[in-house]
Amino acid sequence: MNYIHYIHFMCHIILNNIYIYIYIYIQFGLVPEDYIEINQAQPFTSGGNAAPLDLSFFDSHMPTPASTAQVSHRDNGNDPWTVFDNNASGGFSNNWAAQPEGTETGKTSSNAWHSGGHGHPQAYQGPGAEDDEWDEEWDDVKSSGGYAESEAGEGGAINRGGAHGSSMKIALNNGEVGPVWAYPDYQLDCVVADPKKGSKLYGLKSYIEYQVTPTTTNKPVNHRYKHFDWLYERLLEKFGSAIPIPCLPDKQVAGRFEDEFIKMRMERLQGWMTRMCRHPVISSSEVFQLFLSYKDEKDWKMGKRKAEKDETVGVMVFSTIEPEGLPDLDLIEVEQKCEQFNRFTRAMDDGVKDLLTIGNEHWKRCTGPLPKEYQRIGKAFQNLSSVFTSSGYEGEAALTDALTAAGKTYEEIAQMVAEQPKKDLHFLMETNNEYKGLLGCFPDTVGVHKAAIEKVKEADKLVAAGKITPSDKTTMSKRASTMSYSLQAEMNHFHSNRIYDYNRVMQQYLEQQVKFYEMIAEKLRHAHSRFTTM
Amino acid sequence: MNYIHYIHFMCHIILNNIYIYIYIYIQFGLVPEDYIEINQAQPFTSGGNAAPLDLSFFDSHMPTPASTAQVSHRDNGNDPWTVFDNNASGGFSNNWAAQPEGTETGKTSSNAWHSGGHGHPQAYQGPGAEDDEWDEEWDDVKSSGGYAESEAGEGGAINRGGAHGSSMKIALNNGEVGPVWAYPDYQLDCVVADPKKGSKLYGLKSYIEYQVTPTTTNKPVNHRYKHFDWLYERLLEKFGSAIPIPCLPDKQVAGRFEDEFIKMRMERLQGWMTRMCRHPVISSSEVFQLFLSYKDEKDWKMGKRKAEKDETVGVMVFSTIEPEGLPDLDLIEVEQKCEQFNRFTRAMDDGVKDLLTIGNEHWKRCTGPLPKEYQRIGKAFQNLSSVFTSSGYEGEAALTDALTAAGKTYEEIAQMVAEQPKKDLHFLMETNNEYKGLLGCFPDTVGVHKAAIEKVKEADKLVAAGKITPSDKTTMSKRASTMSYSLQAEMNHFHSNRIYDYNRVMQQYLEQQVKFYEMIAEKLRHAHSRFTTM
Repeated sequence: MNYIHYIHFMCHIILNNIYIYIYIYIQFGLVPEDYIEINQAQPFTSGGNAAPLDLSFFDSHMPTPASTAQVSHRDNGNDPWTVFDNNASGGFSNNWAAQPEGTETGKTSSNAWHSGGHGHPQAYQGPGAEDDEWDEEWDDVKSSGGYAESEAGEGGAINRGGAHGSSMKIALNNGEVGPVWAYPDYQLDCVVADPKKGSKLYGLKSYIEYQVTPTTTNKPVNHRYKHFDWLYERLLEKFGSAIPIPCLPDKQVAGRFEDEFIKMRMERLQGWMTRMCRHPVISSSEVFQLFLSYKDEKDWKMGKRKAEKDETVGVMVFSTIEPEGLPDLDLIEVEQKCEQFNRFTRAMDDGVKDLLTIGNEHWKRCTGPLPKEYQRIGKAFQNLSSVFTSSGYEGEAALTDALTAAGKTYEEIAQMVAEQPKKDLHFLMETNNEYKGLLGCFPDTVGVHKAAIEKVKEADKLVAAGKITPSDKTTMSKRASTMSYSLQAEMNHFHSNRIYDYNRVMQQYLEQQVKFYEMIAEKLRHAHSRFTTM
Repeated sequence: MNYIHYIHFMCHIILNNIYIYIYIYIQFGLVPEDYIEINQAQPFTSGGNAAPLDLSFFDSHMPTPASTAQVSHRDNGNDPWTVFDNNASGGFSNNWAAQPEGTETGKTSSNAWHSGGHGHPQAYQGPGAEDDEWDEEWDDVKSSGGYAESEAGEGGAINRGGAHGSSMKIALNNGEVGPVWAYPDYQLDCVVADPKKGSKLYGLKSYIEYQVTPTTTNKPVNHRYKHFDWLYERLLEKFGSAIPIPCLPDKQVAGRFEDEFIKMRMERLQGWMTRMCRHPVISSSEVFQLFLSYKDEKDWKMGKRKAEKDETVGVMVFSTIEPEGLPDLDLIEVEQKCEQFNRFTRAMDDGVKDLLTIGNEHWKRCTGPLPKEYQRIGKAFQNLSSVFTSSGYEGEAALTDALTAAGKTYEEIAQMVAEQPKKDLHFLMETNNEYKGLLGCFPDTVGVHKAAIEKVKEADKLVAAGKITPSDKTTMSKRASTMSYSLQAEMNHFHSNRIYDYNRVMQQYLEQQVKFYEMIAEKLRHAHSRFTTM
């Protein structure tokens, strides 16, 4: 098979608050499956969708590159959506949004990811680190001959057809603010809790298992980090073209079993799951429901296999979206909305990063020099008190007691100051960090839509040149319109969530800040009352 | 006249919180009056009374150095106290406590101080700076032929005798805590206010005049800084052996007429005057009363002359102290008390300096990086708010308004933080700074007494050697006892004031701190109320 396949990783490494963005292009070709050649690494120009986009799903009538000639065709090639999608696997699939899955080639490349360490954007920890972690996280898959490799032999075109048939229709309504997803009456949520250390291979390998309890069934299921990661990969493949799927919390090599890390990871997995639950399209998807409420091990394994064979992935997801009762969109208006949203997400990305930088500095000051200073003030008062005690002068016990108490109060304040960021700044930082990740997904999602619009704009020329029929053009317009509706629904989903999230996080932050300052005032009031000039 | 006279200055220079102590010994000899030879400058070993003490006033029966042979004797040499005091002017008077005044030689050296720039300890600003300031501060004296030089010609033995005769008796009572000064029923105080720029020599020279209003008469008098300094010199000469006279606020050359400096100097002059008013011995002295309530220019000038001719200065002040109904003291006990007090003042000096260092650092943080950080947090919130406003999404005005308000709140907090030290830390620093000055005077005062005790302890040997009579020994003991009583009264005065001052300053500090934190909490509570997740 002579195919070329690019994957780009957008990675960030956090080193003492300096964010380093690295784009790594990986080329797969006629090379051993587990061989990865890093083609180039170049600095990331922030906020842009600089990566070339795969437009091949609109190119059914255009000449295809020589390299695509040998690509196997999907068995459901008659579906009007897959006409566009077909070439995706042969084109320059730099964009994950059009990532082919479900073909021999796609499956092979998928395996290559697993064995070679494919990660989601922004989770890269450096080549050595990732290998280390990844091996351990996934080694049970290898040893047990799990879903990843065994599937390739066992599965086939027949099974995949079944997977495709199971995809549901996604409703798109017309809301007050424009197109909106159809929201369920009952908001799904779940609780990630109770991390437990498990082991396998007779204790040779250990891992952390989290208990995930959906509010619908209230029946807990257990999942390891790698299961979350598997879910993330499925959601990214299936919905990534239409819905930005935020990355999972970073993998971490050192101290993976330390309580602090486990707590932090659990909290972030909770945040990620809550965000997924809140999304009506994702939360109602089969794969997500499987993850949240599989009945037993067998059910889970069967479900996993089915999900991995799902063919309604990449741009194919748009074929399942039904903008009911919505007229075709005006392209100029769509373009403007797209551009506005693009500008907005970039500006918000800057704003969020700014806040994170400042928050980090403030965190350092609050946990470092500031409490040290309060402690020194406290010690100075107490020291003066003990000097006074040594005066030999009668009747200054009231003063020395008061001074000691004041000194201790400042030591308590020092401790409060040092512990406060965990109580308030933490959530502000976590929320903004989550949004940073989410905003990082938008350039690609928006890019898919912008490219589709460009193609439709070219359609007139193509008709004139006799390359496509006027009927083809109408079909393209309708499809672009559906894509635009779904983007707008996603924008609106993002905005309403953002408004809720920022209201909530600011409430939390300020509430804790108020408590903090009130408690300091209260402590000082008490310290004050002990002095007397009567 | 072949006399040698040493004066030592203990100077401190504050350079970015690094305190540099310099001891300068100045030797006066057969040289022009305004010539000062700086003999040596050596680092100060903190807290000790390392400077050699003048014990000559106890040495009437000891062989005197050759250089003292030509010293003129006082006309009131029959007074039992001046027998001891007499030799002071001829001995190695390194200690100001035994500073001779009222003789030809003393007067000459006094003039040399004025013209040559004699300063009180800790007010030294470097040779150049002092000359500069001093010339201007005192030039009207020179031009008008004021009290300093004209007196030397006009005055004489007759006038001085009169001045001595006017000195009052100082009562020493037995209080609950031991010997105490006789405190008046009505506590004198005064208000230093209303600094006004005046000028003389047809506007060529300008100066600042402060209005001083005693609470007794409520009739204001005007004084320039140099008048305060004149008063300080008189008090130091007269009471310095028995009572530590704290230095005046430092002279300053640059920005002498700047509002900030004038305000600070006025505040410190107020603090100094209040401390002097609170001391029963000082506040009831003729020179202090003159300063506070002279009737007119003529009264002031006459009073000044009289005060300058006062002979009851140096150790002679002890001759006016009457420990009524108090038995002679046990020397061992006195020594122990002395040692305890010495240890105490050193420890307190360390504690106070420590607090000042920490306070200075805290001040810098509160006025520098901390408010900058709050400002940046405020700006980040406001920035996010304006990004949100650009979303084009309907119905987020409530959030953006709330975010802007929260941002502004943090900017207000930034300003509050930056301004707070002036409201609380300032008084804590000023009080401790005052105490630092006061504590710096104690080693010398205590030293005078320790030396006297040593002499009395040697008295037995002197009697055995036939150098003094047993009656002389008894007299010495009685005198040492009086000195010890006065030191104890002074200790008790210091302790009771200290207890009051630290209670008051801690009350002030904590009260302002409470207000500060309460106001922040209140502001944040308001900011919090604007967010909503309904």
